[in-house]
Amino acid sequence: MEEIAETELIMLPGPVPVIPRILRSLSKPTINHRGPEFKRLLEWCTARLQELFCTKNDLYILSGSGTCAMESAVGNLGRSTTFVAAENGKFGERLKELCELYGETKSVVSEWGAPVDLEEIKRHLEEGADAVTVVHNETSVGMTNPVREISKLCKKHDALLIMDGVSSIGGIAAPIDSWGVDLAFTGSQKCLGLPPGLSMISVSDKAWDFIERAQKRPYYMDLIKYRASGQKGQTPYTPAIPLFFALEEALKVFAAEGLDARIRRHTIFAESIRAAAAAMGIDLFPTLDAVSAYSNTVTALKVPRDIEVATIKNEMRRRGVIVAGGQSKLKDKIIRIGNMGNISKGDVLNVIEKLEMILEEHHILNTIGIGSLAADEILAQL
Amino acid sequence: MEEIAETELIMLPGPVPVIPRILRSLSKPTINHRGPEFKRLLEWCTARLQELFCTKNDLYILSGSGTCAMESAVGNLGRSTTFVAAENGKFGERLKELCELYGETKSVVSEWGAPVDLEEIKRHLEEGADAVTVVHNETSVGMTNPVREISKLCKKHDALLIMDGVSSIGGIAAPIDSWGVDLAFTGSQKCLGLPPGLSMISVSDKAWDFIERAQKRPYYMDLIKYRASGQKGQTPYTPAIPLFFALEEALKVFAAEGLDARIRRHTIFAESIRAAAAAMGIDLFPTLDAVSAYSNTVTALKVPRDIEVATIKNEMRRRGVIVAGGQSKLKDKIIRIGNMGNISKGDVLNVIEKLEMILEEHHILNTIGIGSLAADEILAQL
Repeated sequence: MEEIAETELIMLPGPVPVIPRILRSLSKPTINHRGPEFKRLLEWCTARLQELFCTKNDLYILSGSGTCAMESAVGNLGRSTTFVAAENGKFGERLKELCELYGETKSVVSEWGAPVDLEEIKRHLEEGADAVTVVHNETSVGMTNPVREISKLCKKHDALLIMDGVSSIGGIAAPIDSWGVDLAFTGSQKCLGLPPGLSMISVSDKAWDFIERAQKRPYYMDLIKYRASGQKGQTPYTPAIPLFFALEEALKVFAAEGLDARIRRHTIFAESIRAAAAAMGIDLFPTLDAVSAYSNTVTALKVPRDIEVATIKNEMRRRGVIVAGGQSKLKDKIIRIGNMGNISKGDVLNVIEKLEMILEEHHILNTIGIGSLAADEILAQL
Repeated sequence: MEEIAETELIMLPGPVPVIPRILRSLSKPTINHRGPEFKRLLEWCTARLQELFCTKNDLYILSGSGTCAMESAVGNLGRSTTFVAAENGKFGERLKELCELYGETKSVVSEWGAPVDLEEIKRHLEEGADAVTVVHNETSVGMTNPVREISKLCKKHDALLIMDGVSSIGGIAAPIDSWGVDLAFTGSQKCLGLPPGLSMISVSDKAWDFIERAQKRPYYMDLIKYRASGQKGQTPYTPAIPLFFALEEALKVFAAEGLDARIRRHTIFAESIRAAAAAMGIDLFPTLDAVSAYSNTVTALKVPRDIEVATIKNEMRRRGVIVAGGQSKLKDKIIRIGNMGNISKGDVLNVIEKLEMILEEHHILNTIGIGSLAADEILAQL
């Protein structure tokens, strides 16, 4: 793979650029995952992640991507669970598919990028549904869903709340215990600034009640087995050791910045990208209601007339910056710019400048600089 | 984790020591898993792994440990499948548990470390069972099971054969197509010489017939999704990118040695450890029949009287060598020495020398050197 340009800037909504000190930690010599070093590593990382999740709930680190944790969250609850699955994007759809695989499911489907229908969720809860699944930050449409409002509905009806925090936790405020989220999960390759390969899931006492009653659970992501092994400072199956080394390093980087400062930095980065888009006359993709918000970790832009997603992606790439198009039915409709993890103001300006150049070359923008100037004003707050 | 001695020699039955050029490759900058570099990487690795498996079957690389691939092999076949699950160790037990989770199961259980009961497998096949699961190399007891004989039974009865090749493929001959294994899987942290975190599974046309008919399949390890994404040079969910970089490097190392030479090296290493054990008067754990064999990737030794497993492990560790005890019910009964992956003659001699020193100090052995001398004679063949 010698052809990889090492200077490419990955501004995807995951994976994200990994800073050198974290990359280097991947190359540490392998250790025995049944020995005392791994025990210390696992216990230290788990405690730091509980701080990051703002939770006292049990927390487990799975060797698998965010979808592995997603399957764990849904699949461990047992087949007699009735889920209310809120979908307004690709990952909401994925959660819904998992709910359909593992239990009875009431889908609450909005247009992708439109607000979640809280009234319909409420109605299903009134009819006795057991659990609600929601994607906190819908990566596919650049939109943050109102988990706090949904959590109030769940509390009122004594229902479980399952939250996909893959592209929010660590970058957007998601206080698991204060919101009362029963199962929350995230992935390594997003706001944590790690390479992909690990995911983390927190489990409340109420969730354990469901899990303990479940007659069947998936095997590789069986949370009861994770709990039993966790008490010995182990994982039930062989963990992806290099990624645990990187996790330790990333959590040190995280601690040095602090959660509040990190969330503020993500917010300002996203605000600056939105300000640049506004200055350039590019519309944001999501349609908001009073309780949803533009994402502070990924910005979804409607592609201007007279240019195609593939053209923007390819020309950005030629200039050393990788951005994403849409997923599934949004493939050719939006451009997504991530601003997650350990990136800098310079990285944010870089992606905006490149976008301006391309739009100017294609006669969509008259002057280069108006976007980056607007962004820079916001970035000055940092 | 500054306390990790970087010079420790890991002689476990996985994870294994990882050589510097593979370790270094883990630290390459992250790439987009939906871009052309990853496509090239995935397709190149897949083709090399097919050579390593000696198969023309489809092959997929999962971001998860061997158990993830094991669940994929069993869970994708559908709930109407009747499995014959051969168990004579920890991993046979795990396969059996998975069969019980996903289908109807006829267990064929032997004492751990005793031969698999071929007659009983035959009887269940005559009664119409659909599939046989067997662990080729039972890591927990240091024993290789007769997959070729089982494959003949499966062919005769038109049954599927599912083989756990986690600690065999790449170190012990396991020609998937010539044996007619329908689902074969391995893990990265064994004979491939990688860190843990990836697993690989091959799927025959006959296995696809079952998979396509299955009404439900696990989500994260859904082979139909792997096939669809594979055709685009992608994985269905975000892959553990650093481990793919390491896989590419490990497969280059592998190609430079060649499969036959690699299997021969593993054979000679294991023979030398067995010769050392014989010279020291230490018994091997497994009981063989005419078609089973001592493992050529992990040697299980009965612990001599007057010393405990924990003592041996701790004193080996103090001398910089990590070996394993037994698992589950064998915890305090055996010591297991792995010889998988990219290790050297010196590593093999090192573990034997340390064991001799400890046994001599505990007055179990009279003279130091008889074990390593016996081993060295065998190693001279390389």
